[in-house]
Amino acid sequence: MVKVDIKHCAVPKPLMEEYLDKAEQAYDVLMEGTGAGAENRGWINLPSSTLDSDILDQCYNVVQRWSKNIDVVVVIGIGASYLGAKSIINVLTHTFDMQLGKYRPQIIYAGHNLSEIYLAEVLELIKERSVAALVISKSGMTTEPAIAFRVIRRHIEDRYGKEEARQRIVTITDAHKGALKTMSEEEGYTSLVVPDSVGGRYSIFTPVGLLPLALSGHDVVDFVEGARDMEKLCRIKDRTNPSMIYAAARNALYSMGKKIEIMTNYNPKFVYFSEWWKQLFGESEGKEGKGLFPASVTNTTDLHSMGQYIQDGERLMFETILRIKHSNRRIEIQPDSANLDNLNYLVGKTIGDCNLLAEAGAMLAHNEGGVPSIVVEIHNVTEYNMGALYYFFEFACAISAYMLGVNPFDQLGVESYKRNMFSLLGKPGYEADHERLLSNL
Amino acid sequence: MVKVDIKHCAVPKPLMEEYLDKAEQAYDVLMEGTGAGAENRGWINLPSSTLDSDILDQCYNVVQRWSKNIDVVVVIGIGASYLGAKSIINVLTHTFDMQLGKYRPQIIYAGHNLSEIYLAEVLELIKERSVAALVISKSGMTTEPAIAFRVIRRHIEDRYGKEEARQRIVTITDAHKGALKTMSEEEGYTSLVVPDSVGGRYSIFTPVGLLPLALSGHDVVDFVEGARDMEKLCRIKDRTNPSMIYAAARNALYSMGKKIEIMTNYNPKFVYFSEWWKQLFGESEGKEGKGLFPASVTNTTDLHSMGQYIQDGERLMFETILRIKHSNRRIEIQPDSANLDNLNYLVGKTIGDCNLLAEAGAMLAHNEGGVPSIVVEIHNVTEYNMGALYYFFEFACAISAYMLGVNPFDQLGVESYKRNMFSLLGKPGYEADHERLLSNL
Repeated sequence: MVKVDIKHCAVPKPLMEEYLDKAEQAYDVLMEGTGAGAENRGWINLPSSTLDSDILDQCYNVVQRWSKNIDVVVVIGIGASYLGAKSIINVLTHTFDMQLGKYRPQIIYAGHNLSEIYLAEVLELIKERSVAALVISKSGMTTEPAIAFRVIRRHIEDRYGKEEARQRIVTITDAHKGALKTMSEEEGYTSLVVPDSVGGRYSIFTPVGLLPLALSGHDVVDFVEGARDMEKLCRIKDRTNPSMIYAAARNALYSMGKKIEIMTNYNPKFVYFSEWWKQLFGESEGKEGKGLFPASVTNTTDLHSMGQYIQDGERLMFETILRIKHSNRRIEIQPDSANLDNLNYLVGKTIGDCNLLAEAGAMLAHNEGGVPSIVVEIHNVTEYNMGALYYFFEFACAISAYMLGVNPFDQLGVESYKRNMFSLLGKPGYEADHERLLSNL
Repeated sequence: MVKVDIKHCAVPKPLMEEYLDKAEQAYDVLMEGTGAGAENRGWINLPSSTLDSDILDQCYNVVQRWSKNIDVVVVIGIGASYLGAKSIINVLTHTFDMQLGKYRPQIIYAGHNLSEIYLAEVLELIKERSVAALVISKSGMTTEPAIAFRVIRRHIEDRYGKEEARQRIVTITDAHKGALKTMSEEEGYTSLVVPDSVGGRYSIFTPVGLLPLALSGHDVVDFVEGARDMEKLCRIKDRTNPSMIYAAARNALYSMGKKIEIMTNYNPKFVYFSEWWKQLFGESEGKEGKGLFPASVTNTTDLHSMGQYIQDGERLMFETILRIKHSNRRIEIQPDSANLDNLNYLVGKTIGDCNLLAEAGAMLAHNEGGVPSIVVEIHNVTEYNMGALYYFFEFACAISAYMLGVNPFDQLGVESYKRNMFSLLGKPGYEADHERLLSNL
């Protein structure tokens, strides 16, 4: 399902053994709930419990309601409230889906930035299309999605009237409390639940990830089943557990002085998968002055941009290579009698073959240049394999953060900029710092 | 035009003075041509010389030829041969241009990866659209674009016949030599020139950047004029020269132990601009075990993913904040009588105001967390200002690399993976390493 290969990771065997032992200890901390943030472990059994719940039916109900008359669904959320969904939808969807327009509804995103031009352009897109909004926010108070929802809700209500707007707005929020929960009840919006015990970046197997995925026409059952089977594998406490191997190898590399982990993929549809991964690891581990800096490249594209640095710049990094063994398509290189481009030596090979050999060649070159690699491999891109891959990284991340000695589930550092922003924006209750901040600017 | 603010960069004044002196020395090395790679300085006077040349007319001829009957132009190139064009087109184009389909031709990219599914999907997109190809490669032998061009040329020739294909294929390549030059002459393709003395990552003001930009409907004259005026500014050797201030500050920070420079922008259209910047600096400086690792974030989006790490993880980085003072659009936050989202305190503010204050709040929070910042500011997004911005970074990069003591214009490290890849692919002449590489895999 998901294989981890550490043959090229350059960790000496005794050190690897030491870190595999540490991974087993962290596994116990995680599974026994003795670590910091233990109350946030609700994600662990999400895959195995979701298939027996009515969560998927709740998703299908929304899909069915919107399947006939909605052209565009605006998913409103920021951070994990959009990144899980966007990353899996991008992996599974046709690159040119938006131009081809074969599938309805199309999914676009809002409330994940404060770009005025972006929101203005969202409004231009939706004004001549039948639109619905899916608002994802645990509290309903996060500034970016709250602003976007205020603007888009007004658009929908002005255009369709209050009554019909209720059919065109769905929320995913806390089960009991918060502004968005209150609004959902008062307005009569269908509302799905983010469980209390699941933090944002571990929420892809809740409606936060599953409903947008279902709306985009992909198979959520296969996705959850892949995760469920990976859950089984990750719960096995021995050295065949791929999540423990990955967690051990990357922590060993960190102990050897590596400061940057580059997620290296060879498929342009995985750009946002890497962004999801960066949030997962960066937010879980980047605290108390510690943690690997998560970066990403998409090759072979970036071999022609970041490749020079990786080969020959500061020796700060290792790579985690995401290998997809089969590409799901087949384009064989054809002969050309003139052969001016000198490519006839490739005749009979597929482009997928070339991609895998480029990956192998780059890995060995980087290894020789002092950049070790961990390889994480799936057979091909399917809902099932992707479900397994997401869960694999979640489990590995929780273990890895406990190995590092930090709480995998909090993100207190994110509050610092919010306090400053609220104060500068003049939010009631944040007046104290206003003058000090202004004088620092 | 482009302002650099180092008030928050945390470099002690004497150190800054020292590095400004070094920047002046590097300026002399660059302008007098006494440094490594001096033969590659053809980019310096491109903006001031292009307006008086016939290069723009050559671009307009292609635009005119394709303006009536072409739906999609496939730009085939990798690295700098697509990244400059893609980055400026993304900055200037409507986010949902592909869905709205108001402007023809649409620009898509190929040959910048070896993803089989990507190229298969390109073929699916173009098969029912009127298509042309713009092939950009100095040699014509780079594997990725050569493969894509072989596939797409066959598609165009099979569909339209050899004769019409000549009208639908344009190349940008070396003036005198190389596979693509030969092919262009033999097939009779219109061919524009990449000058010898301009390396890929400094080529945006040649047809490599200008023709795609013109095809996408933007004003190339304004773009070049902005660069020309910035060229004038950058040629002034004193401490008002913004490129020297930026080069000095980032090298001073590097000397203080900072290893990562994060390009931080607050506008989602700048994602590929950051990628262009990463290539420019990573490829120019990442050599001999030296150089700042270039990374990027797009806020406020990534304040909810990478923000935690930046605030509180390893203290490795500083930020270069790209500030756009005005957003070109205006959305004011409206009152809401229920105020369940608690946003009424923002009524009367624009989303652009909020974005700038979020930026200020995050900068101060990160400063307090030990992450200094350099601010690079433009007034708003126009062709003119963007031309100035691209040139600013090019000039600053050349100075910066000379300050670091490396050749700003070569990229020998990129050859390592290519040699391995060619050997693994069985390319004639690369047999020697084949067995050794296989045994290492």
